[in-house]
Amino acid sequence: MAPEPIFDIAQHAHVEILTPNPDGTLWFFNNLLCLQESGREHGSVYLRAYEDVYHHTLKVTEANECGLRHVAWRTTSPQALERRVVALAASGLGQGWSDGNTGHGPAYRFMTPAGHPMEVFWEVAYYQAPPEMQSPLRNRPQKRPLTGVPARRIDHVNLLAGDVTATREFLMDLLGFRLREQLILDNGVEDGAWLSGSPLVHEIAVMTDRLGQTGPLHHLCYWWGYPQHLMDLAEICSEQGIPIETGPGKHGITQASFLYVFEPGGNRVELFGDTGYLIFDPDWTPITWRESDGELAERIGA
Amino acid sequence: MAPEPIFDIAQHAHVEILTPNPDGTLWFFNNLLCLQESGREHGSVYLRAYEDVYHHTLKVTEANECGLRHVAWRTTSPQALERRVVALAASGLGQGWSDGNTGHGPAYRFMTPAGHPMEVFWEVAYYQAPPEMQSPLRNRPQKRPLTGVPARRIDHVNLLAGDVTATREFLMDLLGFRLREQLILDNGVEDGAWLSGSPLVHEIAVMTDRLGQTGPLHHLCYWWGYPQHLMDLAEICSEQGIPIETGPGKHGITQASFLYVFEPGGNRVELFGDTGYLIFDPDWTPITWRESDGELAERIGA
Amino acid sequence: MAPEPIFDIAQHAHVEILTPNPDGTLWFFNNLLCLQESGREHGSVYLRAYEDVYHHTLKVTEANECGLRHVAWRTTSPQALERRVVALAASGLGQGWSDGNTGHGPAYRFMTPAGHPMEVFWEVAYYQAPPEMQSPLRNRPQKRPLTGVPARRIDHVNLLAGDVTATREFLMDLLGFRLREQLILDNGVEDGAWLSGSPLVHEIAVMTDRLGQTGPLHHLCYWWGYPQHLMDLAEICSEQGIPIETGPGKHGITQASFLYVFEPGGNRVELFGDTGYLIFDPDWTPITWRESDGELAERIGA
Amino acid sequence: MAPEPIFDIAQHAHVEILTPNPDGTLWFFNNLLCLQESGREHGSVYLRAYEDVYHHTLKVTEANECGLRHVAWRTTSPQALERRVVALAASGLGQGWSDGNTGHGPAYRFMTPAGHPMEVFWEVAYYQAPPEMQSPLRNRPQKRPLTGVPARRIDHVNLLAGDVTATREFLMDLLGFRLREQLILDNGVEDGAWLSGSPLVHEIAVMTDRLGQTGPLHHLCYWWGYPQHLMDLAEICSEQGIPIETGPGKHGITQASFLYVFEPGGNRVELFGDTGYLIFDPDWTPITWRESDGELAERIGA
Repeated sequence: MAPEPIFDIAQHAHVEILTPNPDGTLWFFNNLLCLQESGREHGSVYLRAYEDVYHHTLKVTEANECGLRHVAWRTTSPQALERRVVALAASGLGQGWSDGNTGHGPAYRFMTPAGHPMEVFWEVAYYQAPPEMQSPLRNRPQKRPLTGVPARRIDHVNLLAGDVTATREFLMDLLGFRLREQLILDNGVEDGAWLSGSPLVHEIAVMTDRLGQTGPLHHLCYWWGYPQHLMDLAEICSEQGIPIETGPGKHGITQASFLYVFEPGGNRVELFGDTGYLIFDPDWTPITWRESDGELAERIGA
Repeated sequence: MAPEPIFDIAQHAHVEILTPNPDGTLWFFNNLLCLQESGREHGSVYLRAYEDVYHHTLKVTEANECGLRHVAWRTTSPQALERRVVALAASGLGQGWSDGNTGHGPAYRFMTPAGHPMEVFWEVAYYQAPPEMQSPLRNRPQKRPLTGVPARRIDHVNLLAGDVTATREFLMDLLGFRLREQLILDNGVEDGAWLSGSPLVHEIAVMTDRLGQTGPLHHLCYWWGYPQHLMDLAEICSEQGIPIETGPGKHGITQASFLYVFEPGGNRVELFGDTGYLIFDPDWTPITWRESDGELAERIGA
Repeated sequence: MAPEPIFDIAQHAHVEILTPNPDGTLWFFNNLLCLQESGREHGSVYLRAYEDVYHHTLKVTEANECGLRHVAWRTTSPQALERRVVALAASGLGQGWSDGNTGHGPAYRFMTPAGHPMEVFWEVAYYQAPPEMQSPLRNRPQKRPLTGVPARRIDHVNLLAGDVTATREFLMDLLGFRLREQLILDNGVEDGAWLSGSPLVHEIAVMTDRLGQTGPLHHLCYWWGYPQHLMDLAEICSEQGIPIETGPGKHGITQASFLYVFEPGGNRVELFGDTGYLIFDPDWTPITWRESDGELAERIGA
Repeated sequence: MAPEPIFDIAQHAHVEILTPNPDGTLWFFNNLLCLQESGREHGSVYLRAYEDVYHHTLKVTEANECGLRHVAWRTTSPQALERRVVALAASGLGQGWSDGNTGHGPAYRFMTPAGHPMEVFWEVAYYQAPPEMQSPLRNRPQKRPLTGVPARRIDHVNLLAGDVTATREFLMDLLGFRLREQLILDNGVEDGAWLSGSPLVHEIAVMTDRLGQTGPLHHLCYWWGYPQHLMDLAEICSEQGIPIETGPGKHGITQASFLYVFEPGGNRVELFGDTGYLIFDPDWTPITWRESDGELAERIGA
């Protein structure tokens, strides 16, 4: 009998990005995606989407160049956090505890084999709406904002790595992620891997960068839930000078509706119009895409 | 430190319904919802939606009256199945093993306190598309059918009970479901409860029947993923003589887009246009709706 | 050979409504529907949707009670205006010329048999966006605004009359509107009529008020073009205290997707999620709905 | 005072295309777009979309190569037909009357300066649904079909010409079309023109072929009305081996949502997910796009 799956990571909790243009980055997230500011300190600004339940899901930090500062995961329990810390420490990639975090409790820091800084934590601060912002829709932490086309919640993060397989195996072995889809090149090299612990097709992806871009972050992603909103955002981005890389469209891999743009600080942001398909099968056979699948893996249509 | 959550139930695997009008019921599921037939035996027909990965997710059985025959859950592992069987047997509501099931392995049968027949199992048969039905979209078990407005996968089941709280607590204690939302009347009685083990807002709901309907099944639900398809289905149902109870609309509770119809055998079927919101918070505080919330709990709009 | 159709009325150009609560009315139109203000004078405010090409399509005027002040039509040419003025004057319902109008040239005023004040004009002032508001989408008179869920253009007006047939015949005979759909009661009385001069199913409707409401305006309507935006608006209205009368849904009559709300001044406003179907047949046989068609005429679904 | 507009052409009534693969072409139109067959004769098949009110809107004729056989326009009255025939005869491009047409009365045939065969007619045969196909939605000529993703009505035709301006002026002068949008190259050459007589942004377009394709037909277009259906069709085309040229996306020019595919006979077909924006201004200033507008004219997004 095979060992049981690991159920220790509950979710992608937040991401910290760097920007050389904090005013531009914040204008983009505040006015177009309509993230809500929940605090500022030491050159960083904390933001959340209007259906995000925690203090923040995005931390924007001023720096000389754009990029990734860290990715954070919340565990499913305090016990799960303890188990992950033991495993990560034993892996040699653990870096120790970080206390005094804004918006959450003690976090254990570690690096992926490709050098992506990450942390896991359990204790978290919840967003509490002031009375005038509370919604009669009780399952919504606040009213839907009246600006831009407001994002509903954080979705996933997509990272670049020189060796996709090494980082993918680390995520599976140390954090319990399950492989959902992968792209294998004709030479046998794993070019991309999409993983999750939840029914989402992916909470994290790892890809080799075909565009030769350096740095570990391919993109972060927020979620809207309806494809129409991506078309709305494409119109707004076209009019507001935000470069659109590709989309709106629907991916073959993950079947999710997508739009990729570059925020004024230079980070690529994906906007998700739905969740694609969900995986409830606990014994899922990973989907393998091949080079011969061509553009369909990237996009249904052209 | 609180005990850890139970992660033993992976998903709502299938439901068996009864129909006094099997021809009408099958015409509805085959031609309008475009479920795919995967077998027939002993007065029952097995069906699945085109993105369902198992042998079947719906079993339609001829009977004198419409209603529910059983609800089946797949566990997250063989070990999880063993744990659930031990707990269910100890609860006094276990009924023993059922072998020789079509489409899945040994199943342990039990009853909820309100008398809903259920089963849990681990081993399952996967649907395998014949070559001409295989899709270049590799994450889809078959091509999208060219009939009706095809459902993509099974979603949830909604049951009626005289005592919602008793059945809700059974589902939480014995199967590990977590309470996501509930409706509490002014007299303190729990009128409805929505529960899940996954990030779905609900995989099962329990409600007291306000319409005075007898029998344990309020509805079964299939999922499309896009609200437009519910409008398409409403047009088709209007033209094909299928009674529409309510919708298309969007619920306050669950935030899901819905349409309720009665199939020709008399069972209520909900059609889901999206998944509503997803819950990744592992320490979710259940949402409590009150009578004073009025129609908004049922529908955003009128 | 039948006489040729009249092609003299080009479009519903604007509507003037009355409000006892101008602050509330303007907050609604400015912040939720995101109409753009183009001027103020004498207790009136001029507004337009972001794809409306003229100076204004809505005039909001303070008054003791809500209601309709006038409906304006633009002709297809100066010659067409002359022809309509001759006909209207001869009908005995003409009221003479009004000069010095803001946003358009000389207008000829008249009343329908049921007493709805109307005007026809040819000369019009076009909206000219300041440079920072000009869109790279050259077929759009300005950028899409970043507030609320912005309406794209004015659509139609729906009026109440004691004798639907008399007003409908006036609109056909004097203005050249064509009857597209009508609802005939079992007693033979015409309960509603939908008319247009363009391929729109209706630019004007006339109905007997089943709710016993007095006053000539049933509703004015703005257009979005996508059903999703009506669901967005229903959420916003639910959260912002705007009463929703019915919808979002899709009408049987006109096949248009609708949402009816009451703005804070008390006027009913319809929000149109698409155009329904368009009529290009120049010899259209009017569609007749019967009482026995029941709710389907009003709504596809329930 | 300028002369009045011509209101003689009511609509694009039908198009006849040629196919070297009639079985493939009919399979595509019947099974994917779900056009309804209304007759066969002499190697031709007549088809209509389910909301088209006439006998047919598409005629498919077997030939050695794909392409255009003729485009047909219906006039607004018998008198309008007489006026157009006089003008066309005087232009030197008239070709005389054609009698005995299936589905419509006498048609006057003519050629554009670029050689596109066209006809105008007044008398037409209406589709009459058999009782079992009649819809309770009385404004729909038949029930919505239960196959594929059914097209609702014919939309427009897009033609290629060596000299766009000459053909565009012919359409304006002889048929009364109005110029809505155009694309002017940096060298001053008119590269594309979009024209209509109705509020549609275009019922006919003329373009120079950038791909060097010979033959007069760029594409014919059917209309669905909802962008979601284009994504459904893109999935179906991907799975059924129908080449997708571009889309689903939204055009800058016309603002319409589009998908371009090649039917098995080789003709390009555009599928329209909405109508874009409508033009009611009777004195519309044509929109001029420039080469410097780049890809935005073609697509909002990438």
